[in-house]
This record gives sequence, structure tokens and C-alpha cells, in this order.
Amino acid sequence: MGALRLAIDVMGGDQGPRVIIEGSARAVIERPDLELALFGPRQRVVAELSRLPQPLAAAASRLVVCDAPDTVSQDASAAWALRSGDKTSMVHMLRYVAQGYAAAGVSAGNTGALVALARRELGMLPGFSRPAISTAIPARGGRRCYLLDLGANVDSPASRLVDFAMMGAAMAQCMDGINCPRVALLNVGAEATKGSATVREADRLLRERATTLSFAYQGYAEGGDIFQGDIDVMVCDGFVGNVVLKASEGLTRMLVERVQMAFESRLCGRLASLLAKPVLKRLKQELDPVRYNGASLLGLKRIVVKSHGGARADGFYYAIQRALQEVEHDLPTQLAKHWA
Amino acid sequence: MGALRLAIDVMGGDQGPRVIIEGSARAVIERPDLELALFGPRQRVVAELSRLPQPLAAAASRLVVCDAPDTVSQDASAAWALRSGDKTSMVHMLRYVAQGYAAAGVSAGNTGALVALARRELGMLPGFSRPAISTAIPARGGRRCYLLDLGANVDSPASRLVDFAMMGAAMAQCMDGINCPRVALLNVGAEATKGSATVREADRLLRERATTLSFAYQGYAEGGDIFQGDIDVMVCDGFVGNVVLKASEGLTRMLVERVQMAFESRLCGRLASLLAKPVLKRLKQELDPVRYNGASLLGLKRIVVKSHGGARADGFYYAIQRALQEVEHDLPTQLAKHWA
Repeated sequence: MGALRLAIDVMGGDQGPRVIIEGSARAVIERPDLELALFGPRQRVVAELSRLPQPLAAAASRLVVCDAPDTVSQDASAAWALRSGDKTSMVHMLRYVAQGYAAAGVSAGNTGALVALARRELGMLPGFSRPAISTAIPARGGRRCYLLDLGANVDSPASRLVDFAMMGAAMAQCMDGINCPRVALLNVGAEATKGSATVREADRLLRERATTLSFAYQGYAEGGDIFQGDIDVMVCDGFVGNVVLKASEGLTRMLVERVQMAFESRLCGRLASLLAKPVLKRLKQELDPVRYNGASLLGLKRIVVKSHGGARADGFYYAIQRALQEVEHDLPTQLAKHWA
Repeated sequence: MGALRLAIDVMGGDQGPRVIIEGSARAVIERPDLELALFGPRQRVVAELSRLPQPLAAAASRLVVCDAPDTVSQDASAAWALRSGDKTSMVHMLRYVAQGYAAAGVSAGNTGALVALARRELGMLPGFSRPAISTAIPARGGRRCYLLDLGANVDSPASRLVDFAMMGAAMAQCMDGINCPRVALLNVGAEATKGSATVREADRLLRERATTLSFAYQGYAEGGDIFQGDIDVMVCDGFVGNVVLKASEGLTRMLVERVQMAFESRLCGRLASLLAKPVLKRLKQELDPVRYNGASLLGLKRIVVKSHGGARADGFYYAIQRALQEVEHDLPTQLAKHWA
């Protein structure tokens, strides 16, 4: 049985390399054919590996250290990364993927830099000009909705919104087996006269092509529809998607906090609090999709998953799982077919 | 003691006139000097008034029926309303406010039509070209954040974002007594290089004027900061604000539902469910600000509050309270001063 190898950028996450390496070790322990190439400053990575707690330490033989002295910091610009990032763990990781040594790459680092570098190092699939970022948002009835773009592209012209619709539909088909995904354009109302000029133009383009599309274009949808469970893919400019996603994260945190407080203040203290805790913990995980599941960079020739900058070990572990699923479904090939 | 009079558009809400009239009756019962002029088809309004249940029926003498045969439907365009809305309850209500017969107007009807008609009928304060819509979003630590614009303006140029900052700051100062409100521009990241061209231009304009501003401009903030409690006014284009607001509503609904389900499925059924119910109900109200509090149209010469289209009697009651508070603080005059 040949080993499956992924490339991991251990630097650039808000929590430092330890949680990334712990999440990586956990993934390797669970799957005997998995090897991970860990990119970062050798000494630092080796030191963290030697500190792995017991059940995880057994994974060390399948965690290969790949030296990369520099780091793309969270506040570096994409331009800086393109110009001066040659010795960073992010670039080394992506080149390893580009050369075919690994089936996918995962990073918790700077999103803008990752998008720009991935585009340069891996190249785009024919028909797509720039990567988009997407993640599955949990919706009612246990369903989910792929939201894109999440910030790789701001000021997207209408034609790029159409690209997002294609990418998202391919993702839902390939990863979730949805035959004819329901795709909608995020707008301020369902009526044809509403919305920005760009969204209305994208609507026109999608209606023009309706008969040739392999998905069911639903027209406009509103912000609340993301969570309703009736739409599989919600398309928007990266500015809007990024703000909505981060607002949803912030709102979820506040809500869970308030539920907790409300219970603690009302009911006979300890008991209620104890009862509520596991429920609230699960809820937080379910509703913080990027922190817990990672986001996919779509349109690239190879698979790259972005883990949340603030992810802890379990968050990074799930981002690796996401990458493994995309490898299994051969997402880029499916995406290319979809377009052709 | 002179009576205080507000004008109410009883038509156009998703729930029909009954809930509007019930909410109005409740407001009048609570405040002996309040009179409400109810605009709608006379027969319909009279019929609903005669159906008011007992404690509310006592309010009927201070609920004055003002006949207006037509209704602006939720799917009418603003252009239609401007052209053909002369006999609608919305136009009649606004003209009544414009003529000074009422201190403020409240409607649960079509937002786009209300913005366009209010602008034409009431006029703008000097310095402002178009109304903005804003509501206070609940944030951590019992604080709140005014978000604007919520959909009156899509494709806002940078200069209009600066107007929103002014309007929001005046609102926070005047209504909440915050001396020097913290105002931020909603963006995809805190770094200067990030964001759309328009947002970056608005940032430049605000920094240029920083010394002359009566608020503390904080630069960029991200979606999650809306709920953090560190920002008093969050400025964005109406497209973004509308999507974020509706997404937050949808997410809150889903979350509350899931908390409820989680408790019902986990704990000894009835008990847990009973314990959780009042907590969850309060939470839903707190976190559904528009449905429960109404949104203000800012920049007009007179006060107009937009109640949520889906508001029930209590939601509409709160929208009337909001209008009363704005009357008490003389919001338009304060806003005009702020600009001058």
C-alpha cells in the first residue's frame, strides 16, 4: 500500500506551530497510510515533535520535517509574500505540492498570501482566473450551504461571480454527491430590480446560460437563506462573504456565551450549567465551520485547504480531514470537467 | 398637557394590519398623552379596531382612523411607489408627518418604497443626499453597535460611507449619550492594504478629516467586531449591511432552534425544555433587533422608523417606542447640528 502524503505549513497560525503539529499527529495516528511533510524552521519543528504527548508521539515517524527558515506573518501583504516569500514555510509547502510530492497542502497562515502564492505556484485550472475560498456553512435540518467567495476576491466583476457559481456547484456535486445543486446569488431582496449593478449583471449571465448549466440556478437569495437549508451554494463577492462569515462567527460566540450566562443566572447554578455545557460545546463546533472544518481554495490545479488562523489542534485536524476528502474525490479534476 | 401624535402605516406588513393595530393600541394604553393616526383603508382599520381584545379596546379613542385606500405591496418597486403610490397608506402617512401633524411616522411596509417616498415627502437635512437605515445590534457586555447602512443604498461611493459615519455617530451621541462614539469601517481585514477600492477611499477621507470629527474614527474592523462591544458605529454599504443583518437573523433563529432541540433530545425531556424556554425566548428577542426594535431612517428632516416586515404586535410596539425616543431626543435637529 503506497503512503498518502500531504504537505503542512506549520507556521503562521495564531496559536503557533504546537497546535498545528498536534493536529497533524492526531491525523497520522488515525490513518496508518498517511504521511505528513511538516514545513517550518527545522529546530522549532523538531523541538515541538519531541514534546508531543504520549499517544501522539507514536506518530513522529510519519511526520517528516522539511526545513523552511522564514514565515509569512499574519500581517504581511500578498505582494510581500510574492516578492520575498521564497524561504517561507508557505512557499516551500506549496512547491512541494506543485511538484507532486504531496496530494494536497494545508496552512493556517495569512489568507491573502496563501491565495496569491497558491495561484503562482500551483496554477489555475483552465477557465478560472483566480482562486475562490469556500466553506460549508451548517444550515437547518442538518443540511449545509457552500458560501463563496470568502475573501480571496473583493470587487469581483459579474463574470467572476459566475465562476464562483461553477466552482461551488462542482464542490457540492463532487464532495457531497448532490446531483443538481441549488445555486443562488446573494442579494438584498428576491425581486429582479434589487441589488448592486454587478449582482444584477451576474444574474443576467446565469439566466442566459441556464440551459447549459449542470446546476439549478435559483436566482437571488437573501442573507437569512444561507442558514435555511434550501440553497446548496450561495455566491457572493469576497468582501460580502468574508464579512458575513466573520459576523456569523462573532454572533455564534456571543450567543453561546449568553445562553451559558442565562442558564447560570437562572437555574439552580451548578446543575444547569453542567447540563448545558456539552450541548453548548457541540453547538459552538457545529456553527464555527471555518475554525473547525477549514476552507477550500477552489480553481487551483491542486488541492489547498486553509485552516482558520485561530484554529487549535482539533480545528487543524479537521482541516487535514477536509484535504483528505478532497484528495479522495479528486476535486480539481472534477472541477475541470465541470467547466469543460 | 398637549397630546403627542405619531402617524402609523397599518398596511404592508407581512402579518397584515391586525398586529400593527394591536401593537399601536398597546403603545397608546401605556402612554396617556399619546395619539396615533392609523393610515389604511377605513373599513379594514375600523373592523380591526372593533376586534381589539379587552384591555386594548380602551385605546380606541386615541387611535384615529385616517383613510387611505391603496397599499404599497412588499414586492412593489420604489419607482412604482413614487409614480403610482399617491393613494397608499404609506404616502398618506408620510405627508401627514411632512405637514407637521405628527412628530414621527412608523411603517412595517416595503423598505425600498419607504426610503424613496420618505426622501421625496420629507426632504433631506442639509449635507445629506440619501437616507440611510440603521439599527442597534446587541453586542457583548450588554453594549450595542449601530450598523448602517442596512439596505437603503447599494453601490455606495466613498463619500456616502463618510455620511453614514456622521449619521451613525450623531445617532449614538444623541440617543445613547455616548460623548465620542467609536466609529469603524467594516472591512475584510484590519490592514491598510485590504478591502475594496471604495472602502479604502472612505478610510482616506475619514483620516483626512480626523481632527474635525466629533467621533473617534477607529479605522477598519471585521465582521466579528459588530458583536464584540468595542465599536459603537459600524459603517458599510447597504448591500453588505443588509446581508449581514439578515444572515444574523437567520443564524439566530437556527441557533435558538438547535439549542432547543439539543436540550430536548438530551435531558430528561419536559423539565429541561421548560427550564430552557424562557431563556431562549428572551435571547431570540434580544438578538433579533430589527424584528423587535425597528430601524431608523437617518438624514431625513423628520423621524421615520421602519418596523420589520415580519414584526408581530410586540415588534411593532417596540418600533413605536423607538420613534418616541427619537422624538424625545429630537434626532433630526441633533443630526443637522452634527453636520454643521
